[in-house]
Amino acid sequence: MIETINLEQKFSLISERWQPKIVGELNDSYVKLARLQGEFVWHHHDDEDELFMVIKGTLVIKLRDRDVMVNEGEFVIIPRGVEHMPAAEEEVQVMLLEPKTTRNTGNVENKCTVEAEWI
Amino acid sequence: MIETINLEQKFSLISERWQPKIVGELNDSYVKLARLQGEFVWHHHDDEDELFMVIKGTLVIKLRDRDVMVNEGEFVIIPRGVEHMPAAEEEVQVMLLEPKTTRNTGNVENKCTVEAEWI
Repeated sequence: MIETINLEQKFSLISERWQPKIVGELNDSYVKLARLQGEFVWHHHDDEDELFMVIKGTLVIKLRDRDVMVNEGEFVIIPRGVEHMPAAEEEVQVMLLEPKTTRNTGNVENKCTVEAEWI
Repeated sequence: MIETINLEQKFSLISERWQPKIVGELNDSYVKLARLQGEFVWHHHDDEDELFMVIKGTLVIKLRDRDVMVNEGEFVIIPRGVEHMPAAEEEVQVMLLEPKTTRNTGNVENKCTVEAEWI
């Protein structure tokens, strides 16, 4: 079934933060949406590059040597193996693109670890 | 090099239509930007699913049995094997996500066929 996905409509279905939801799949990857606020957990992904695109707000990706700021209409790609921690002072709406095998907390398993569901 | 990509800034570097430019790579895929207006060419991709996200304007993806309209803030995924023809009455700015192996005209080779370059 080929259907148009409206990001605003999908975000209206998401209330929790740091719980990415799947809104599309192509090739071996998922497109996910998430609301983020506060600081996440330092982690990396051994085998997956990850794209963060900001739909609303401002996202900071903390790296070990610097912070990368991503504003609305911008994206950043974090290559596999690079330690990072997403953070946001105010709530930010983010579109993620990553392989289906990607765990949200990467090499870490803790209370933040969630299995993404379709919405 | 991890850097933030600003879509508006990248679109300012593109003047031609129907000539996707590469602005990022992750896993086996490229992120591309393109300005589209008019009708493209009917084609399909044998092995690649393709995501079209509209950044500005309205895109119509013609399928053999119906048209799919994609507005700003929306995306659609065209699965491999599905014949389609992108079209737009007014110029539309589109972000594409597709495997690196993807040829813009899919199974067709004609004057519209181009090799995407990095910007």
